[in-house]
Amino acid sequence: MNLKSLLRPGSVAVIGASEKLGFGRDAAENLMKGDLGDQLYLVNPKREEVLGRKCYKSIAEIGKPVELAVICTPMAAVNGLLREAAACGTKAAVVYASGYSEAGEEGKAAQKELAEVAKACELAVCGPNCGGFINNRDGVFAFGLLMPERRKAGNIGLVSQSGQVCSLLASVPYLNFSYAISSGNNAVAGAEDYLEFLVEDDATKVIAVYLEGVRQPERFVRILGNAARKRKPIIALKVGASEKARQTTTAHTGSLAGSDGTFNALFKKYGVIRVDDMEDLVNTCLVFSTLEKPLRNKNLAIMNVSGGEAAISADVSQMQGASLANLSADTLRQIKEMLPGYATPNNPLDMTATLVFELNKYKSAVKIMMEDENVGGIAMGHNPPEKIPERDREVDFGFAEALAEINRETEKPIVILPGMSRKRDPELREFYGEHHIPILDSPKYGLSALRRYGEFCMYSPDDRTLIPAVPPQDRETKSCILSEHESKLILKDSGIPVPEEIVVTAADEIPRAAEKLGYPLVMKIDSPDIPHKTDMGGVKLGIADEKEAIAAFEEIMNNAQTHKPQARIRGVLMQQMLPKGTEMILGINRDPQFGPMVLAGLGGIYTEVFQDAALYPAPLNRKEAMEMIQSLKSYAILKGYRGSNPLDTEALADMIVKLGDLAVEHCGDLKELDMNPVFLYEKGVYAADALIVKG
Amino acid sequence: MNLKSLLRPGSVAVIGASEKLGFGRDAAENLMKGDLGDQLYLVNPKREEVLGRKCYKSIAEIGKPVELAVICTPMAAVNGLLREAAACGTKAAVVYASGYSEAGEEGKAAQKELAEVAKACELAVCGPNCGGFINNRDGVFAFGLLMPERRKAGNIGLVSQSGQVCSLLASVPYLNFSYAISSGNNAVAGAEDYLEFLVEDDATKVIAVYLEGVRQPERFVRILGNAARKRKPIIALKVGASEKARQTTTAHTGSLAGSDGTFNALFKKYGVIRVDDMEDLVNTCLVFSTLEKPLRNKNLAIMNVSGGEAAISADVSQMQGASLANLSADTLRQIKEMLPGYATPNNPLDMTATLVFELNKYKSAVKIMMEDENVGGIAMGHNPPEKIPERDREVDFGFAEALAEINRETEKPIVILPGMSRKRDPELREFYGEHHIPILDSPKYGLSALRRYGEFCMYSPDDRTLIPAVPPQDRETKSCILSEHESKLILKDSGIPVPEEIVVTAADEIPRAAEKLGYPLVMKIDSPDIPHKTDMGGVKLGIADEKEAIAAFEEIMNNAQTHKPQARIRGVLMQQMLPKGTEMILGINRDPQFGPMVLAGLGGIYTEVFQDAALYPAPLNRKEAMEMIQSLKSYAILKGYRGSNPLDTEALADMIVKLGDLAVEHCGDLKELDMNPVFLYEKGVYAADALIVKG
Repeated sequence: MNLKSLLRPGSVAVIGASEKLGFGRDAAENLMKGDLGDQLYLVNPKREEVLGRKCYKSIAEIGKPVELAVICTPMAAVNGLLREAAACGTKAAVVYASGYSEAGEEGKAAQKELAEVAKACELAVCGPNCGGFINNRDGVFAFGLLMPERRKAGNIGLVSQSGQVCSLLASVPYLNFSYAISSGNNAVAGAEDYLEFLVEDDATKVIAVYLEGVRQPERFVRILGNAARKRKPIIALKVGASEKARQTTTAHTGSLAGSDGTFNALFKKYGVIRVDDMEDLVNTCLVFSTLEKPLRNKNLAIMNVSGGEAAISADVSQMQGASLANLSADTLRQIKEMLPGYATPNNPLDMTATLVFELNKYKSAVKIMMEDENVGGIAMGHNPPEKIPERDREVDFGFAEALAEINRETEKPIVILPGMSRKRDPELREFYGEHHIPILDSPKYGLSALRRYGEFCMYSPDDRTLIPAVPPQDRETKSCILSEHESKLILKDSGIPVPEEIVVTAADEIPRAAEKLGYPLVMKIDSPDIPHKTDMGGVKLGIADEKEAIAAFEEIMNNAQTHKPQARIRGVLMQQMLPKGTEMILGINRDPQFGPMVLAGLGGIYTEVFQDAALYPAPLNRKEAMEMIQSLKSYAILKGYRGSNPLDTEALADMIVKLGDLAVEHCGDLKELDMNPVFLYEKGVYAADALIVKG
Repeated sequence: MNLKSLLRPGSVAVIGASEKLGFGRDAAENLMKGDLGDQLYLVNPKREEVLGRKCYKSIAEIGKPVELAVICTPMAAVNGLLREAAACGTKAAVVYASGYSEAGEEGKAAQKELAEVAKACELAVCGPNCGGFINNRDGVFAFGLLMPERRKAGNIGLVSQSGQVCSLLASVPYLNFSYAISSGNNAVAGAEDYLEFLVEDDATKVIAVYLEGVRQPERFVRILGNAARKRKPIIALKVGASEKARQTTTAHTGSLAGSDGTFNALFKKYGVIRVDDMEDLVNTCLVFSTLEKPLRNKNLAIMNVSGGEAAISADVSQMQGASLANLSADTLRQIKEMLPGYATPNNPLDMTATLVFELNKYKSAVKIMMEDENVGGIAMGHNPPEKIPERDREVDFGFAEALAEINRETEKPIVILPGMSRKRDPELREFYGEHHIPILDSPKYGLSALRRYGEFCMYSPDDRTLIPAVPPQDRETKSCILSEHESKLILKDSGIPVPEEIVVTAADEIPRAAEKLGYPLVMKIDSPDIPHKTDMGGVKLGIADEKEAIAAFEEIMNNAQTHKPQARIRGVLMQQMLPKGTEMILGINRDPQFGPMVLAGLGGIYTEVFQDAALYPAPLNRKEAMEMIQSLKSYAILKGYRGSNPLDTEALADMIVKLGDLAVEHCGDLKELDMNPVFLYEKGVYAADALIVKG
């Protein structure tokens, strides 16, 4: 799709330009503030002039092709205008009108028609039911909502599936956007198209997205992969973690919300940064867009102007998962020399009046902290006022200049981390911003933004298997359950360790099978129609000899017949009895949009009660598998707890990798796989039971 | 202590008043902005006039008693001035000077001397090393730091153990304080004194405190109890959750930080609201001080101006633990009638343009939500601008008036919950504030403040045992460990179920003991010097007959002698062998400041790995004990999981209550008690092992 004509047009016609309040006025006014000059045309059949500017009767009257048509009329006129514009050589359009897919069945039909017109006319269309876009790079403001005063072009590219969220974010005076795009109903160009455009756009360093759902999952994942490889951060305000949010988004745009756990898993793999609300997005964007240097390591030093604030910073760091550097003995010694005799230096550092008010000491102290190799970057706990009083200007800017100078000279980033949310002196903010020092909102928002920046800096796409395994969409298939033995054959074929086992169909087959397997044995009914074997007396453990085996065979077969006369019985599964190990659960769940997700967790009742499980998209490599294992709280048990020997997490990681490969290989028809329990030992790991659902 | 003379003096002398920058100028200027009129006196031996006002040579020269002396000099002059003032009839003083306990050993000595002077002169002293205080109620601004312009008296009383934190909070233009007190080094008047004053002060509705540590724990707890019984909320920014914060506060004021878990337990019992940073404190204070009505129940309704914001609100509600109401069918029907045909109402509600722009519909919709009995209160997701443009004033205030009207007419509170942190139009904020509608900061801060408000509204002091069990302070005692049997005797005496057991000292006592207890038996070494019995072969389980019992006796005695020849051996403990139950851990830990804390958690290795334990101050009643049990994640297991029968949590609660009583009874000399494991059954509960450390 030709998004260049849409987002970076050389000429624009506002169709339905008007002085009346509404899209026709806002769009015309906004575009007139831009850089199109005489390449901006206003069109309205009923006017000679709009807002002091010549007005054409129609796009045809302009007499030359106009690249983008911005259509401000209600929906009834839209399709005709699109056709007319295309006939005159227009390549793209913005449609603000509502009444489409957000408005019931009739609206859906109208949207389908609009999409067909766009396709037939080869038009890239933004909307309908959208706010349009702001392009600060070229000064094209095809925005149908009230726009704040024009600001300099920035490096944040925003795509929003909510017009209001786009408008609110675009109005933050200290966020500088390359583009801010309200994608509306995504009838023609969708979130994926805009994301792809921004990933490729040189002016865009950071991508922000408000996301309700994804229409083209495979393409979405490929775009995430491209961004990861380019090291271009995507900061996602993805809604749908709660049931109430899923209800709301369904009502809002009819987006398929998808499983929230899947998004978290995908984001982890692709290094996408997930944020919680708009302020969180603002702070995170500020950090990513303003800093020009990565954190050297994830550990921060914080320098506060009082002991109280230092203590608060320390607690909030821990709460937000931001890591604080342990200062080296040398740093502590040097700082101690600068402080009053009694004071003890710490991180966060209480600078005391000595360092706060004496510029030279202040500079030296910041430099000393910077030079500590345990420190990845510095947060200064200043609280700039809303407006610097005239008498303080020189001093305040003097300190700011000192930080700017240090920032120019070192390899580590600096941020300002105030103690509260307040408006800050815009001139000082501007000064800091120009020197790549962001002023954040408050410890909670600021420190979680810094933690995320650290995670992004430590993320490497080379450590990950950035290969999508998205299943064909919109298939309808019937589910079918495999028996335990059938399931295990598939596992075994993929190199996953399972106990030796043989299916017997008659009692006289038992001696031979037992000889091969050796006692003690486990015996289980083998039937695709009886997934819950234990409940119906279909499992016997600890069978010690032939006599017991024959008795067990007969009892199991009887129980099965009584329990489910119609069940397809494959026989009785005779299995080596595994020694008791630590119970784990492993499995695969295929997300309808994003394909197979591998699950690993502690087994037994604790998985559910303590929610101690990890989810990750297949395929995955050993490093990713080990990361899954290490992310479990119960990893503390697995790695050896209170003197017990460590368990074989290497073998477990190996099993997870193979499980991921199996998931990809069977991506088209494997819906679900449960290995429960998996027994993990000091040496080795075995899947003691397994259940595959095809479909 | 006479805090009335300190905080509400009828007359004030500023000693060391000056035009030079510093305390002497700031305090004089601040106090001159207040209401003391001719009851404010400036004193400086070197000046005739300061800031255009007559200046006295000394406090004596004033010729009449002045109630409060505000001493702005460096520390060297302070004690002399205090004595002089007291001699002239002064009752209280503020001392800004630093160099005291925060400044090493010499400073500590100086502080001790200051305290002695104050005591001898019967002076209530604020400080030293403090910022003084702001009293908005009477217009007394004995504040030694830059003060924002004077604002109307509010209902928030603030005590801060950090001057800078006090100053920052006092400068928030929309928080209205009755008092803001910087307590400094607490040499004479301490945080407890100020808290007590504020609990009793009629003008103070909400108490905010920045707390590093407590000096008088018993008194502190009694004050919390008084506040709880008066239903006066205490909002505490208590630092010290992290190790780095504890290091910092020790360096800062030398406060004894205390165990952070203990503070959480205390706060839970006394309904104290703990917040995370200053912005969190600001939002929480705004909610508590502005709302005049409690939440009717903890479930909120949120009304947003867009679907995007509604979805974000839903997710953040879940994240912050704020509960959203399930709207009744009737509400949904009524709202649906008002929305465009296709729209589906939800909570959070996307109001759509229909409800956002049409005042009458807006009012009706808010009223409909209000009338839903599932709704405890309403949050309106508006984003007021920094300054309302003139053209929008009438409309914006019209909507604000509508909310104010509804708020007057209903029993449920309303708040404004914007999507981001921004400065808001001060006039609109003022208007809302006067109508008891706070404008909060952003979803994260706002929704956690609302959750806490809900918790406070649901809290009842009648459900709790608000009785302190604080041990005598500053005792030094030696620890001594009791043997298992000795420990169990104490448990049994308190009515805690333990298995029947007998200590035998020779093999020939075994038959008689066994006859009384019945096989199977457990046998364990009984020695106060061998707390870890299993490690040295001091425990034998499942002893089935006399022969095994005699063998076990000899082996255990031998092992003990080999392992620890000097150990005091009481004999071998013979014990009924309990059937295997669900393992729990119960215990008591005495906090050196706040006394015995009862601990309950799931046993085995899971307690530590999943941190699934509850801590609560003793004594406690059944309701509190049951709340502890229900707060465990593993409560899902205890109450019956996946078809298993529920365990006897009633008996467990009973055991916890008795444990609390035991803890209080032995408060003076019981340092630690561990019951590990406790076996919980479908019917009954027993402490299978126990260890008491006295001291």
